[in-house]
Amino acid sequence: MAIGEFELIARYFSAIGSARQIDLGIGDDCALLTPPAGHQLALSIDTLVADVHFPANADPYLIAQKALRTNLSDLAAVGAQPLAFTLALTLSNADENWLAAFSRGLRDCANEFDIALIGGDTTRGPTIVISIQITGIVPTHQALLRSGARVDDAIFVSGTLGDARAALQSLAVTSSQLNAQQQFLLSRYYTPSPRIALGIALRDIATAAIDISDGLAADLGHILERSAVGAIIEPEKLLLSVALRNRADAIDLALHGGDDYELCFTVPQTKKNMMQNIAHQLALPLTEIGTIVAGDELFARATNGRTQPLPRSGYSHF
Amino acid sequence: MAIGEFELIARYFSAIGSARQIDLGIGDDCALLTPPAGHQLALSIDTLVADVHFPANADPYLIAQKALRTNLSDLAAVGAQPLAFTLALTLSNADENWLAAFSRGLRDCANEFDIALIGGDTTRGPTIVISIQITGIVPTHQALLRSGARVDDAIFVSGTLGDARAALQSLAVTSSQLNAQQQFLLSRYYTPSPRIALGIALRDIATAAIDISDGLAADLGHILERSAVGAIIEPEKLLLSVALRNRADAIDLALHGGDDYELCFTVPQTKKNMMQNIAHQLALPLTEIGTIVAGDELFARATNGRTQPLPRSGYSHF
Repeated sequence: MAIGEFELIARYFSAIGSARQIDLGIGDDCALLTPPAGHQLALSIDTLVADVHFPANADPYLIAQKALRTNLSDLAAVGAQPLAFTLALTLSNADENWLAAFSRGLRDCANEFDIALIGGDTTRGPTIVISIQITGIVPTHQALLRSGARVDDAIFVSGTLGDARAALQSLAVTSSQLNAQQQFLLSRYYTPSPRIALGIALRDIATAAIDISDGLAADLGHILERSAVGAIIEPEKLLLSVALRNRADAIDLALHGGDDYELCFTVPQTKKNMMQNIAHQLALPLTEIGTIVAGDELFARATNGRTQPLPRSGYSHF
Repeated sequence: MAIGEFELIARYFSAIGSARQIDLGIGDDCALLTPPAGHQLALSIDTLVADVHFPANADPYLIAQKALRTNLSDLAAVGAQPLAFTLALTLSNADENWLAAFSRGLRDCANEFDIALIGGDTTRGPTIVISIQITGIVPTHQALLRSGARVDDAIFVSGTLGDARAALQSLAVTSSQLNAQQQFLLSRYYTPSPRIALGIALRDIATAAIDISDGLAADLGHILERSAVGAIIEPEKLLLSVALRNRADAIDLALHGGDDYELCFTVPQTKKNMMQNIAHQLALPLTEIGTIVAGDELFARATNGRTQPLPRSGYSHF
């Protein structure tokens, strides 16, 4: 290949995003940064593998966006402010067109969320593997955890669910053949909206939170497990996008489809009235879908009042 | 496969290493930690790919050791104290024997360096890809950078060089067929010694440092580039292990072989006398091999006094 590793890094991965709060970025053995006093660091690492998490021939601009956005979503889930990220990129070859588009996607997303790329490693392998570790900050003891849900808390979700999963059926179609609703679904799949502002707004309000990556039932299940509680949700209350609304499997996609990266969170009944204000400020629907109950089970209550156990199945890689 | 992703994490990746200074480890959307006041964070990410950085059928215990040790070496190079790490692990299948041995390797190394696994992601892919991001701490403004070398500084390297590269020739041999010297070389390849204690000892002394991953000439070259200086080294002064000493290509391996993870660092002439003490305290040879000079070139001086440019070639993935 024509391009060397160091040249590749210089050309495509230098000066991505804001250098605010970064003491030393790419180019030494480590990056250095000074977190502000009175804050905890929030760290998370996530991997996307070609033909597992995205089609190998997908637009590299969108692959980069998806990789960084899904990582940012983990910060949103704990109410953290994004600070910096590192990138481990494995490629089968150093195609410059691919790298240029990937770099643009990373840069646009980094600028949107005011976050800097501070380090990385590029390696050769049989397929595209992208691991991003993201670092954020949250005022000490204000992080939203999965473990804080209490009996009688109201359960909320942001935005609409099921869209990303529905998009999978359109992935093989070239974009010029897609109608507007398919385009919308694909944008939900490739460029999910990490709910950073919502996570921050919920710091003093929510008792528990998680981002929906595996599917609502699975991820709410994680809150229940870590909080040692149960829940009853009303699937008919789930907000569905226009693109999904008329599909027979819409509710099923909303309950069990993953990749939406909306937040599911619990709020004490006494603070429920604050949700309308936050929803208005963020121009983001926040929908109450159920209640935390004693026990350890997850139930769905139908409009006819019938309540039955809801399988927590979601997406699992192994 | 019989084992689910969550079960896999619980069985093989929970409670690895010390939880000191970790506020929240594996099990939520992010890990949380509080760095001590007066310190900067040092962060680095590195990837190992099967059949690029190690044979795919290598002992998973050793693969884990190598992955974590090479990352720790980046902290050593900046003089940082290890704090925590995250693991992104891509596997073609969830073989439990493999995972158990890999987990043991990770655990033993984490205990040795008093560092905790605080988060991770396991994914499926066509081959083994291991990315580790490591986080350390260093007192503010005391980090060793590549950029601080000054004209007349003495150039030192720790330990012996060339061993890991020489080991590559033995990789295909099963261990029962290896003689003691081959065993030694392989241990240098799979379980390099990140020079954490040396990096910390050099904080107030060295003007620049780097760990030798690509080869001495290449890595010293990075110091020269970032410091805008040149260097003259005397290859005959390089310390060679007994296993390498009688090989005709020993000096070449020491100059251009990578993967040794020793430190190369520069020290003002006025502080050179401190090296003997540090070497003694750490039971680690520290060998003066040359001098920083004006300009931007790297020269090798032979025992007959003849000086010629030294190619900075090293290992590059692309």
